[in-house]
Amino acid sequence: MFSKLKKLLIGKSLTTDQLKHEKFSVLWGLPVLSSDAISSVAYAGEEILWVLIPVIGVMSYKYMFYAALCIVFLLFLLVFSYRQTIDNYPLGGGSYIVSKDNLGTIPSLTAAAALCIDYILTVAVSTSAGTAAITSAIPVLLNYKVIITLIIITLLTIGNLRGLKDSAKLFGVPTYLFMVTVAILIITGVIRHFIFNYNPAPIIPIEPVNPLNSITLVLFLRAFASGCTALTGVEAVSDGIPNFKAPAQKHAKIVLGLLAVTVLFIFGGLSYLSTIYHAVPSEKYTVIAQIGWQVFGNNNIMFYALQATTAMILIMAANTAFADFPLLLSFISRDGFAPKQFTKRGNRLSFSNGIIMLYTAAAILIILFKGDTHLLMPLYAVGVFISFTLSQTGMFTKWIKGKQSGWRHKAFINGLGAFVTFVTVVIIGITKFVHGAWLVFILIPTFVIVMMRIRRHYGKVAEQLKLPLNIRPKDITPSEDKQHVVILVDTLNRSFLKALNYAKTISSNIVAFHVSVDTDATEKLKKKWEDYNVGVPLVIKRSPYRDIYEPLVNFIDSEEHDSQPGDIVTVVLTQFVITKWWHNILHNQTSLFIKNMLYKKRNIVVVTVPYIIEE
Amino acid sequence: MFSKLKKLLIGKSLTTDQLKHEKFSVLWGLPVLSSDAISSVAYAGEEILWVLIPVIGVMSYKYMFYAALCIVFLLFLLVFSYRQTIDNYPLGGGSYIVSKDNLGTIPSLTAAAALCIDYILTVAVSTSAGTAAITSAIPVLLNYKVIITLIIITLLTIGNLRGLKDSAKLFGVPTYLFMVTVAILIITGVIRHFIFNYNPAPIIPIEPVNPLNSITLVLFLRAFASGCTALTGVEAVSDGIPNFKAPAQKHAKIVLGLLAVTVLFIFGGLSYLSTIYHAVPSEKYTVIAQIGWQVFGNNNIMFYALQATTAMILIMAANTAFADFPLLLSFISRDGFAPKQFTKRGNRLSFSNGIIMLYTAAAILIILFKGDTHLLMPLYAVGVFISFTLSQTGMFTKWIKGKQSGWRHKAFINGLGAFVTFVTVVIIGITKFVHGAWLVFILIPTFVIVMMRIRRHYGKVAEQLKLPLNIRPKDITPSEDKQHVVILVDTLNRSFLKALNYAKTISSNIVAFHVSVDTDATEKLKKKWEDYNVGVPLVIKRSPYRDIYEPLVNFIDSEEHDSQPGDIVTVVLTQFVITKWWHNILHNQTSLFIKNMLYKKRNIVVVTVPYIIEE
Repeated sequence: MFSKLKKLLIGKSLTTDQLKHEKFSVLWGLPVLSSDAISSVAYAGEEILWVLIPVIGVMSYKYMFYAALCIVFLLFLLVFSYRQTIDNYPLGGGSYIVSKDNLGTIPSLTAAAALCIDYILTVAVSTSAGTAAITSAIPVLLNYKVIITLIIITLLTIGNLRGLKDSAKLFGVPTYLFMVTVAILIITGVIRHFIFNYNPAPIIPIEPVNPLNSITLVLFLRAFASGCTALTGVEAVSDGIPNFKAPAQKHAKIVLGLLAVTVLFIFGGLSYLSTIYHAVPSEKYTVIAQIGWQVFGNNNIMFYALQATTAMILIMAANTAFADFPLLLSFISRDGFAPKQFTKRGNRLSFSNGIIMLYTAAAILIILFKGDTHLLMPLYAVGVFISFTLSQTGMFTKWIKGKQSGWRHKAFINGLGAFVTFVTVVIIGITKFVHGAWLVFILIPTFVIVMMRIRRHYGKVAEQLKLPLNIRPKDITPSEDKQHVVILVDTLNRSFLKALNYAKTISSNIVAFHVSVDTDATEKLKKKWEDYNVGVPLVIKRSPYRDIYEPLVNFIDSEEHDSQPGDIVTVVLTQFVITKWWHNILHNQTSLFIKNMLYKKRNIVVVTVPYIIEE
Repeated sequence: MFSKLKKLLIGKSLTTDQLKHEKFSVLWGLPVLSSDAISSVAYAGEEILWVLIPVIGVMSYKYMFYAALCIVFLLFLLVFSYRQTIDNYPLGGGSYIVSKDNLGTIPSLTAAAALCIDYILTVAVSTSAGTAAITSAIPVLLNYKVIITLIIITLLTIGNLRGLKDSAKLFGVPTYLFMVTVAILIITGVIRHFIFNYNPAPIIPIEPVNPLNSITLVLFLRAFASGCTALTGVEAVSDGIPNFKAPAQKHAKIVLGLLAVTVLFIFGGLSYLSTIYHAVPSEKYTVIAQIGWQVFGNNNIMFYALQATTAMILIMAANTAFADFPLLLSFISRDGFAPKQFTKRGNRLSFSNGIIMLYTAAAILIILFKGDTHLLMPLYAVGVFISFTLSQTGMFTKWIKGKQSGWRHKAFINGLGAFVTFVTVVIIGITKFVHGAWLVFILIPTFVIVMMRIRRHYGKVAEQLKLPLNIRPKDITPSEDKQHVVILVDTLNRSFLKALNYAKTISSNIVAFHVSVDTDATEKLKKKWEDYNVGVPLVIKRSPYRDIYEPLVNFIDSEEHDSQPGDIVTVVLTQFVITKWWHNILHNQTSLFIKNMLYKKRNIVVVTVPYIIEE
């Protein structure tokens, strides 16, 4: 039943050979790899205003513009830095790999932990923001935002478990549609304002603030820190190099450049429009929706197109995390720092365990934070910038150590990148600490410690399993007296007979063992044993605690049993097999329990002889 | 960890020999076996008033008294009927046993189903009423009534899993305390009213009703049906005969008589006090609490004593269900109509599965009905009276068939009992149908069908397992060529070596089998296989769907493997054993999955060679 449902939702299994990737040109590489980065402008400007508006009111727009400038500066610095990463990591240079190569285990695990947290937050933030775009257009849905967001991530999860093909067009079109719609918005907005002198009243009036309030450095830094979420997703291009058509690195660098220009234009444009039209962040209408409403009019088709494409690009951004997070986990897991199951592909070739984990974590965040983008933000940017810093520091170290031609210049760029992103981490960490960033500073070390312990465990296991060539198999020829067989008997029935017949093929040294928990049943067995004349000795032990394992093990270890310490003893168990699964609740699972206990004994081998009951 | 917690809550295991019962005299038998019956007066009168007050207002008290009279008549009829059951079933005559003996399978299962539902409702109703007694004294707790009720049943469950000793004094004292407190209440109340002419205003004023309303037959029958909950628990005495000191039957009959007199006095007295003091049922204060308040005064110590003893006797009543329900289930299960696990005693000798089931079912009811006694009632009385009817009909049939001396007289008494209780079932069923009784009429047939299907399943299994004396064990002497051994290999390590060494002791006809899901890993294995010179042929199959079971089974069934159809093939698996349980999530449980699949193949025997990893 479960497997039918699974098949319906996930589709039928695929063979490993069907694993292949579509390669991107620049035309489709741009929208696919940049949806995360571009979509983040949908909330970044709003975040800046959330900080400024309540304190300095209408003055905010001026400083929002300055903050946006700083962020764009940071963006171009990152572009230059990442161009160098692309040159050096043709197979993809995520910060986990770069820091592993250049900085060692702990920094790489820190990057890994930061990235994992980021991917989870990308899903939670982007889908929440997508829902906000929907509810801004259809406010009646506002009360259902958590449910809508959960439905979206559920659909994404099912889609990814099915193994959404890397269909460039499917994922690329929404990005282009968003870019075009926003471009129309910006151009129309600017023209209406400057040429037609259009100055509508704000949709949400700005609350009056204390006129003595003015901008402070701390306030500006908080605004800057909030806006830094605009830069999430920039790393995706350098991760995705293997997906480009040859020459891959060149194409990747072009896409990275175009990405930066697009973000510059959209982020700048939207910030500017906020200033003109005095958009005010609110729970009900997103800033973009307010601008769209002002520029296009509330019931205009373009307003709805803007909201629809915004929602779509945000959902696509969440989808990239569904592609990248399981892949990252599979890398970490291949290095032994995460459970091995993350390296296994599911029926449809997707890394299903990673997908399910991402889904669970994001769903928990969405429920805890009630689907509110704004509340999730403080957790988001810290992790992103920690991984930027580690990646840049890794590149910097590489140049310093390698001293290839032009290393000074390259080291300067990555060093500057590392320094600036580090300063940003500090700014975000301090200004957002109480708002949630503290959680990230607890989670990252915790993850790192857990990953190290996992690695240590795998190491120990590998050590103990290692088989040197000089340890040889024993030179044994099967002979009956070597084998000690104990066959567990509860009732003398056909299932026991099958087990006995099997036991006889491996040894003639067989003892039947019965644990008496019910005197009547034991008497019955004794009588039947004699009547039937089984031909094998029957040992009966009472078990005052109604437990079967202890008496069995005690018997085997005792003088009474003829095995010597160190001898392997074979315990034969019968196993009931029932065709209808629900019938299992009608039968004791004693055999299963005993089996799991017996595995812990070094000298016992468990033989299970199944007996199938037909219905 | 789990086992430590279990030990802390439940206590250390007990041996079967420690199973013994305390025998009751009349003095302690009365309170222990009658707590359920006596405690039900705490809500029965109130139930009558819930029906009458909203329709006929202050006139209700007159008709309440008549309804109480009818119920007391029924009680005495039941006492005479059950005296005859006690005479004939010295080992305890619950309605399941009586109807099994005299009426056949379906009636006995109907009785069983009705009783199971009753016990569950006894727990839910009594603990909810106990909580109501507490919140009437401390109204600030009213908002937490569901939680308080759940805490009470949780404590009862833990206590019963620990195996509360049948300590007569522990359970008997609260009943006597309740009896004494209520006696003081009745006497004080009557004296204050008649001698001191005390006529306080009602605590809750009676809402005015339409003055044209008057009593109708239907209304009276509904009131009667509601009050019948006073008779729940009467059967307990005839169930409990084996617990009496000799002469057990005589003692049981005395206790039954005393029980009836007690109920008569308390139920009559409380009904009368309701009339005098005009108690009105409400969500906030129970009727008994209102009377206590009027008679003793709100802050009087006696008021609190009344509430405390009421709560205690109700909780004791719930506790009797915790003792009786698992015992009933163990009887049903011994007859094959319920899962066998219900016959097994837990670590502390209690029937733990039954206790846990009762807990779960009662907790669900309490949560669904928000801990409201009044809402649970309609479900309660139907089941009780169905089991009364079946039990009396069974006794009636016994006399008719047996025709012993005096059978006519005896048949008349039980026949009258059967008739009257049947009429009561009809009255309750009709008047309470829409209020929840319908559920019981669905549940009972469902339970009966499920129980019959369980019996049929066990029958089929027993049939297939039956071993006639003429089917003899095979006459085999172990010899290597009879055994086909396939050893599954993933990596060539020490765990595999241990398995191989074991396999060699049972046969020299060994094939190693590897399923390739990862080409690199397979190449590594191949190379190591040659380097190590294992000495056993290695068969490698590709598995495009990354599945291991199918290729293995296909190989065994194929021409390639030298076994003939019908030959038993031994599959040797290695099993990883890890000392820390949480480490299991770090390892694939593939071996476990394969094992469970292989059990379904008739010709395969599974050998598990455990390999223990030290931490």
